[in-house]
Amino acid sequence: MHRCQPPDAVVWPQNVEQVSQLAALCYSQGVPIIPFGTGTGLEGGVCAVQGGVCINLTHMDRILKLNPEDFSVVVEPGVTRKALNTYLRDSGLWFPVDPGADASLCGMVATGASGTNAVRYGTMRDNVLNLEVVLPGGRLLHTAGLGRHFRKSAAGYNLTGLFVGSEGTLGLITAATLRLHPVPEATVAATCAFPSVQAAVDTTVHILQAAVPVARIEFLDEVMMDACNRHSQLNCPVAPTLFLEFHGSEQTLAEQIQRAEEIAGHNGASLFSWAKEAEERRRLWAARHSAWYAALALRPGCKGYSTDVCVPISRLPEILVQTKEDLKASGLTGTIVGHVGDGNFHCILLVDPEDTEEVRRVMAFGEQLGRRALALHGTCTGEHGIGLGKQQLLQEEVGAVGMETMRQLKAMLDPQGLMNPGKVL
Amino acid sequence: MHRCQPPDAVVWPQNVEQVSQLAALCYSQGVPIIPFGTGTGLEGGVCAVQGGVCINLTHMDRILKLNPEDFSVVVEPGVTRKALNTYLRDSGLWFPVDPGADASLCGMVATGASGTNAVRYGTMRDNVLNLEVVLPGGRLLHTAGLGRHFRKSAAGYNLTGLFVGSEGTLGLITAATLRLHPVPEATVAATCAFPSVQAAVDTTVHILQAAVPVARIEFLDEVMMDACNRHSQLNCPVAPTLFLEFHGSEQTLAEQIQRAEEIAGHNGASLFSWAKEAEERRRLWAARHSAWYAALALRPGCKGYSTDVCVPISRLPEILVQTKEDLKASGLTGTIVGHVGDGNFHCILLVDPEDTEEVRRVMAFGEQLGRRALALHGTCTGEHGIGLGKQQLLQEEVGAVGMETMRQLKAMLDPQGLMNPGKVL
Repeated sequence: MHRCQPPDAVVWPQNVEQVSQLAALCYSQGVPIIPFGTGTGLEGGVCAVQGGVCINLTHMDRILKLNPEDFSVVVEPGVTRKALNTYLRDSGLWFPVDPGADASLCGMVATGASGTNAVRYGTMRDNVLNLEVVLPGGRLLHTAGLGRHFRKSAAGYNLTGLFVGSEGTLGLITAATLRLHPVPEATVAATCAFPSVQAAVDTTVHILQAAVPVARIEFLDEVMMDACNRHSQLNCPVAPTLFLEFHGSEQTLAEQIQRAEEIAGHNGASLFSWAKEAEERRRLWAARHSAWYAALALRPGCKGYSTDVCVPISRLPEILVQTKEDLKASGLTGTIVGHVGDGNFHCILLVDPEDTEEVRRVMAFGEQLGRRALALHGTCTGEHGIGLGKQQLLQEEVGAVGMETMRQLKAMLDPQGLMNPGKVL
Repeated sequence: MHRCQPPDAVVWPQNVEQVSQLAALCYSQGVPIIPFGTGTGLEGGVCAVQGGVCINLTHMDRILKLNPEDFSVVVEPGVTRKALNTYLRDSGLWFPVDPGADASLCGMVATGASGTNAVRYGTMRDNVLNLEVVLPGGRLLHTAGLGRHFRKSAAGYNLTGLFVGSEGTLGLITAATLRLHPVPEATVAATCAFPSVQAAVDTTVHILQAAVPVARIEFLDEVMMDACNRHSQLNCPVAPTLFLEFHGSEQTLAEQIQRAEEIAGHNGASLFSWAKEAEERRRLWAARHSAWYAALALRPGCKGYSTDVCVPISRLPEILVQTKEDLKASGLTGTIVGHVGDGNFHCILLVDPEDTEEVRRVMAFGEQLGRRALALHGTCTGEHGIGLGKQQLLQEEVGAVGMETMRQLKAMLDPQGLMNPGKVL
């Protein structure tokens, strides 16, 4: 939905010294700086709205240091999450944050990414131990101190947390120390159809309350399920559906499965279908990850726009029902899919980009959805970020003092306003 | 170790409006403001080094809102962690962060507290969803927006994270929205003696690598174990020891126990002793929580000084062996106890406060321990904070650019330097 706005120049630095020199040069000349990873963000974070120099960090793609006993790894900004997990294959460890796209890990830091595994393993906010940041003027900051990779600290202000989710507006992330997790011994996935949205959400809350350590719990509305059936040759009932995944030992999995089935049964689930074999599981999650393409296939020739909000879990049924009514009233085609264990969901809208009136309706729908989330004590974005598209909603979300504090932070670190200008604030 | 430095006045506001008026009045008159919760911090965070007004928040002790389906609760600053867990008793939920003392929850936010359960449930940094903060001039900031309590967000800069661990130097925390967890169905604790520090740490790393979801894993050196035996009438072997606790269903506990025993056995553990009954478990953890008093009893009439550092887990054996040698070389009496699953440990030193030479040696020892942790890529404090005692170490930890960024943050939010002056920076 964000019009392509190219920069005046693109550079591909090979190392942090070059990034630092570039930042210093741009800053001294008043030239905007736009950091670039894989460009898979959804809120226009890499649009060069004021021109300037795009610093493409993909050539810096080394995995600098693996500390297996300490469950940590240091990566350069061009390393993607799939590349890291391939590298880790024989280590018994993995990096679980999975936003769907094979995004660069430092880009995921910048946007505060999360995705399907966040309910169990947390988001990027929970999985970054240290960052190397080139500040706008070119100076180098190690947010937790040079080379440090402890699990916790109470030493001074949390600078690492300040840069996670800052969307490239405070500095360029040139290395990240990430927290790794042990690969689960066994994995089982399942799908489960429900008579209503409420029943699917109640099942989610009850599974969490029962302390079943679910690794993924994804909701698909019946439109999304139908689209996935067609696009990925699944054969699931066309109904509000949960996709679940459990990680653990063989023995604990059996118990998790039994409990989840009991809870779903109490909530009226009609069919619980287990995928225990790797191939079956792969097919299921490939279908989930192809939800975007499945949605696009509903209106060939149209573009997709995925918006995201997050609310307290108890308010999910309310907002999901409202959103489906809003969709109907607006005459738009859209599907709902989301990380229901976090209260986070996406609405994928199909739009003809040539139809300016429809584009306007899609934008209005997105804004209305954001406001509905805010009215339910939620946030206008659970994981996509503010970028260009949600600046008005951010103001409504955090209020005047919150906005002023964020603006002070921006002015403090980027007094000339040259770091990825026009985003977030 | 921090000399008592009383304020000029103490006030007990009853509500956030009064806190705001007090902050505005103090700020306009150039009077230092010192927030006070339970005063259980260990690094002198409530000393009024420049006099001023102590704002004692203990009269604001209401639990404002419990959202059981959303796993969240809003508390005023006078609510302690034990009071909250008593309140939650029938809800099926609990707040797991446990620094030992019955500290106020907002004080725990301010110091970034953690403790024995952090290896499984995280520290305060992971368990705060929103904060109400009175800024130095009296204005009210809701770090995640007024009344919001979502599980995750990518909306703007992480203001919540900025105040967690800020030690009262950026504002007064007048309410916190905390993340709750389901009460485990069953709990088992255990003690296990090892032939060496290395064997105990290896066991810890292997348990974590095997993805056994240990809830607590605490290390006690043989001096600490001996002191606890005497003080709390335990009968454990005098050796490097792990205290463990597992949370889960009856069935998964059996498996966790079996795996932990196998791993400990492979690492030469001589005795694995299980405490399955509540009374037995209570006795064990009461002994662990009384470690401070057990240590004090080693030298009656002396004072204790507990310092804390945190290193990458793989470096724990090295620093523990070094620390024991340093203790011997310094002629000081001290015990070692800690949250080994996080790489975090405490050294409790016994000191005669009248003996200035000994006090000097204790301070020197603490500084040396901090430097040893820094040399091993660790932090000078895993959970106690910087306060008055570790400002030099903080500079060495985060470097010049890190310190300058922290000073900029302080100047931005507290331009007159009146919020808890003399701490952290």
